[in-house]
Amino acid sequence: MNLDMIRAAAGRLDGHARRTPLLSSPFLDELAGRRVWVKPECLQHTGSFKFRGAFNALAAMDAEVRRRGVIAFSSGNHAQGVALAARMHGVPAVIIMPADSPALKLANTAALGAEVITYDRASEDRDEIGERLSAERGLTLVKPFDEPEVIAGQGTCGLEIAQQAAEQGIETADVLVCCGGGGLSSGIALALEADAPGLRVRTAEPEGFDDVARSLHSGEIERNARTSGNICDAIITPQPGNITFPILKRLCGPGLVVTEDEALAAMGQAFNRLKLVAEPGGAVALAAALFRGDEIRGDDVIVTVSGGNVDPAMFARALETL
Amino acid sequence: MNLDMIRAAAGRLDGHARRTPLLSSPFLDELAGRRVWVKPECLQHTGSFKFRGAFNALAAMDAEVRRRGVIAFSSGNHAQGVALAARMHGVPAVIIMPADSPALKLANTAALGAEVITYDRASEDRDEIGERLSAERGLTLVKPFDEPEVIAGQGTCGLEIAQQAAEQGIETADVLVCCGGGGLSSGIALALEADAPGLRVRTAEPEGFDDVARSLHSGEIERNARTSGNICDAIITPQPGNITFPILKRLCGPGLVVTEDEALAAMGQAFNRLKLVAEPGGAVALAAALFRGDEIRGDDVIVTVSGGNVDPAMFARALETL
Repeated sequence: MNLDMIRAAAGRLDGHARRTPLLSSPFLDELAGRRVWVKPECLQHTGSFKFRGAFNALAAMDAEVRRRGVIAFSSGNHAQGVALAARMHGVPAVIIMPADSPALKLANTAALGAEVITYDRASEDRDEIGERLSAERGLTLVKPFDEPEVIAGQGTCGLEIAQQAAEQGIETADVLVCCGGGGLSSGIALALEADAPGLRVRTAEPEGFDDVARSLHSGEIERNARTSGNICDAIITPQPGNITFPILKRLCGPGLVVTEDEALAAMGQAFNRLKLVAEPGGAVALAAALFRGDEIRGDDVIVTVSGGNVDPAMFARALETL
Repeated sequence: MNLDMIRAAAGRLDGHARRTPLLSSPFLDELAGRRVWVKPECLQHTGSFKFRGAFNALAAMDAEVRRRGVIAFSSGNHAQGVALAARMHGVPAVIIMPADSPALKLANTAALGAEVITYDRASEDRDEIGERLSAERGLTLVKPFDEPEVIAGQGTCGLEIAQQAAEQGIETADVLVCCGGGGLSSGIALALEADAPGLRVRTAEPEGFDDVARSLHSGEIERNARTSGNICDAIITPQPGNITFPILKRLCGPGLVVTEDEALAAMGQAFNRLKLVAEPGGAVALAAALFRGDEIRGDDVIVTVSGGNVDPAMFARALETL
């Protein structure tokens, strides 16, 4: 896993992924007490940064391997990213999803051209189903984060941040990144190390699911006690990845942690001041910038809004914070 | 009013206005029955395209005139655009607003650095207040649409559309533009005439407030019977402008008209599929693309989402359409 892979990913994504803008609002600046710069990956294809890594993973495959198709386990943003990336490459995608996934997520993934295979969480083994299908059809697994070409794809977001920060004259700042398994955080950290060494990644996570913050603190991989029961479902993983964590440990500052209420309030501010739809897990970095300012240094802070795939009922809760 | 003024405006806005992206979603394509390309001016500074025209009008002024300050009448998007543009130029702005304007709009305009002067709609004459202040302080009026340098600023959005359409290989398409007084529509039409002659502007308006569609049909300026009583308040004006209408008449196809329910449903789709916050008046062009497809020709349609300044209660109504 190295910078050259991120630069190669940028070449592959050129003309396929969106180059998202860097947004700001004087109202958010006032609320945060410093200038806040927002990288809205909710505007990326499929509504999250996951498309970057998925597209790059497919593009980097040997053509003959890719032609047989890909497989992924996900009920969320990674599923949609892989499904669209496969369709854009003209190859089949199988997405294994729990049978009790929200109907809309099942429908969306299928509408993006993927074959959706559901399993019963109680009685069936997801991995066994995946391995059988992969063997039968020669499918290649695209992992959600602990996979070099996926990290490289997410890292292209960091190359853009480096360039956009330079355009704004920002030389030093914390870059707050919504963090699940660490694919986006580690990719951005590697890109910034090379292109903007004054910018430092800080991970942002929901309270009670702060495995990365604790791991960064102890220096060892720590696990979450639970892996469900938080509105920030998109970024909840059992623990940081074996590939991502050493990168995070080497390059990131202390992790930041926010409450569910802070995430909802940040969604409300993104609606009101940036005209963006953020999902709870995609709003934790903005929440940290707005409500945990005493843990941040500098006149500028850059945050990712990593995704916007939220249902109307949850969004209505965010509107109530205004 | 000519193309050179739009090109000059683009030079003035470079590095100050945002170059908004051109977004799409396979789900919207399926709903519309053709490819839908969205130009999200809700992501522009102050949440609407109005910033473009306001900034250009200030930038084009003689420095000595500008130094004395500007004045505008508006309770909405134009007010915020002028306020921020004046602040960015370091000159005073006075915004005359009805005393019964929503508190948030009054507060936002003031927070952007403008001096807000309210008047009683029943007992006071807005124009008299404006003229007195202008005379006393030497302020220059920035009109909302019937003003060449304002039209030129809005036209920069058309230059971007021409370039972004070419990047996508789109040579012919209808370009649906949310239309009030016609500043954005006429500016875009002039830009496209020069840079993308296969792209044709079609205005979009709310039912019952379709002065531009009727004017295009009759060839003469027609008035609305009412100027209030519709959720698309941002684009309701008494009639097309004296400068904008001849441009619209020469360059635009037949006007499109949508219902309030269609505008709300388009807001819901923008939320769900593009992760954008659109206001009702900013969603009428998308509504026409999605729900009035039989009035449009071609494999591609380009639409503006012209603004996103909507309060949470109205947005909640849009979420209910999903």
